[in-house]
Amino acid sequence: MGKVILTGDRPTGRLHVGHYVGSLRRRVELQNSGEYSDIYIMIADAQALTDNAEHPEKVRQNIVEVALDYLSVGMDPEVTTIFIQSMIPELFEMTAYYMNLVTVSRLQRNPTVKNEIQMRNFEASIPVGFFTYPISQAADITAFRANTVPVGEDQMPMIEQTREIVHKFNSVYGEDVLVMPEILLPENDACRRLPGIDGKAKMSKSLNNCIYLADTEKEVQQKVMSMFTDPNHIKITDPGQVEGNTVFTYLDAFCKDEYFEEYLPDYASLEELKDHYRRGGLGDVKIKKFLNKVLQEELGPIRERRAYWESRIPEVYEILKSGSEKAQKVAAETLKSMRTAMKINYFDDSALIEEQIQKYQG
Amino acid sequence: MGKVILTGDRPTGRLHVGHYVGSLRRRVELQNSGEYSDIYIMIADAQALTDNAEHPEKVRQNIVEVALDYLSVGMDPEVTTIFIQSMIPELFEMTAYYMNLVTVSRLQRNPTVKNEIQMRNFEASIPVGFFTYPISQAADITAFRANTVPVGEDQMPMIEQTREIVHKFNSVYGEDVLVMPEILLPENDACRRLPGIDGKAKMSKSLNNCIYLADTEKEVQQKVMSMFTDPNHIKITDPGQVEGNTVFTYLDAFCKDEYFEEYLPDYASLEELKDHYRRGGLGDVKIKKFLNKVLQEELGPIRERRAYWESRIPEVYEILKSGSEKAQKVAAETLKSMRTAMKINYFDDSALIEEQIQKYQG
Repeated sequence: MGKVILTGDRPTGRLHVGHYVGSLRRRVELQNSGEYSDIYIMIADAQALTDNAEHPEKVRQNIVEVALDYLSVGMDPEVTTIFIQSMIPELFEMTAYYMNLVTVSRLQRNPTVKNEIQMRNFEASIPVGFFTYPISQAADITAFRANTVPVGEDQMPMIEQTREIVHKFNSVYGEDVLVMPEILLPENDACRRLPGIDGKAKMSKSLNNCIYLADTEKEVQQKVMSMFTDPNHIKITDPGQVEGNTVFTYLDAFCKDEYFEEYLPDYASLEELKDHYRRGGLGDVKIKKFLNKVLQEELGPIRERRAYWESRIPEVYEILKSGSEKAQKVAAETLKSMRTAMKINYFDDSALIEEQIQKYQG
Repeated sequence: MGKVILTGDRPTGRLHVGHYVGSLRRRVELQNSGEYSDIYIMIADAQALTDNAEHPEKVRQNIVEVALDYLSVGMDPEVTTIFIQSMIPELFEMTAYYMNLVTVSRLQRNPTVKNEIQMRNFEASIPVGFFTYPISQAADITAFRANTVPVGEDQMPMIEQTREIVHKFNSVYGEDVLVMPEILLPENDACRRLPGIDGKAKMSKSLNNCIYLADTEKEVQQKVMSMFTDPNHIKITDPGQVEGNTVFTYLDAFCKDEYFEEYLPDYASLEELKDHYRRGGLGDVKIKKFLNKVLQEELGPIRERRAYWESRIPEVYEILKSGSEKAQKVAAETLKSMRTAMKINYFDDSALIEEQIQKYQG
């Protein structure tokens, strides 16, 4: 069997450059590497509803936004299957069976869930669906027989939970029914989380500190020019700090040497630029203008592809629909083999009918 | 809309006279009353797996046993839809959406779940599926738009949980999407729990103290003759106690006045028999022989119908299959209206596509 990828996002807002650096860019690289026989990218609407049950409209609106973002960054629907989670009913049934193989206390120990519960201020009023979402993630991964899950280090406990479920299912119901997934961690720390433009650790819609993939050239420019730098770097001649300076963090994530030749020929590399900033004598406006050029170079093609797909909304729906149909067929096959292994495929189980007849006539 | 019933059993063993007195007899009465437009009886295999995940074979074998028991007591498949829970995938998806509307702490407060966790010695290692089964019961009830759930008083907290979910779903997503169910409590306490033949409060396969609906005439007789009575009623002349005396508890549940005329004409009613026993002068053998006659009268027709269906196993499968198909169609309609209310029916939602087109071209 070839290498199969499953990954995805919750459709709770437009995707931003943090998503791009943290996962999207890499997914496109993996897609284009030709190493994977199947790639599934899931728009996790059902998972989004676990903590947005009262705001289905938000989820509804963002389905297309996220699909546009996927297509914009270079996901190729001819190669990658983009689908909507709730269109795959098999996932819910698999989740139900996996729930029998995990204890409540095991879920409570999941550090990712603990952390997210804290972030959302849920405390005593955690929705059951949110509490149990590591189990539904196991369904998402196993349904498509994914053996490769490219995620960040913070998601390791989630993949560990899936691996435990696969191990348990296979040992209870029969070896080799489910495929054991492996986590594919980023190769370098350029995939780490990008801070917001205000320097805050988390980009968030409510903090209004994100650069979205869908932002216009002007919006990107304005956001870059207002970026948090080094608050002690007051006069140009002052020495400046590079660490924790948002402009440099973004340059770390996006800058390529070739951009210096074009936009800042006095420097050969990012290291030279950083050195000058540290010594003093390099102003914030100059580095912001450079970052703006870099971001426009990187985001320009994404923006162009977005414009292309924005004018073809019905086609985007068709992509989601046919992706969901394809994904559903694969999940149905997996579920069928699960039900056979669990021996709950009563109506296809001719041995069972025969046994029962023998029992009463023998 | 007419009155609709949903009820069912876990297929973890043959049904016994306790089930008959506690629920089956009443279901047949309700079926034959003609008051209900639809009656759904569910063989809850998925629910049985929540605490039998490692014993799917037990569940598999008992599907047919429970179906035979249903047909034996007089469930009429022409009137009552008998179906298998796991054959209705919609139930799992509904459960997932309901899980977003219930908090973990609310589930922890459910007294029925608390009690059953204790009974099963689960303590810290409760399977998540078992912990969340009140939510899956809400799916079972609402999927078929049942407004009437005939259960015992001990199930009231479960129905209350379903009612809360219905209320919450309708207030979040739109009034009148889900039907609010009412509990239908037994009219008299003849529907209370029958003790085991050893006088223990609970009939249980492992205690080997059950009279099964499938027991032969001889098995019933042997079990009745070995029944626990009053341990202080040693000589026939001793005064005897009726309360806590299993023979009298069973007579309370099964005896009709007409049986005296036929089998014990010295007495006109059960009260007269009890009085004599209390006074002294009435032996245990005599009351056991009478109970045996009564039980054979009551169980005889059930046994005959069982023999009829046991020789028609493929037909029993057909009944389950067509019942499941019918139930699935109804559940699919309910789920469709739920998804429409939740606005996650993206591909059928032409307004959504139109909105998105306008957004990008307007």
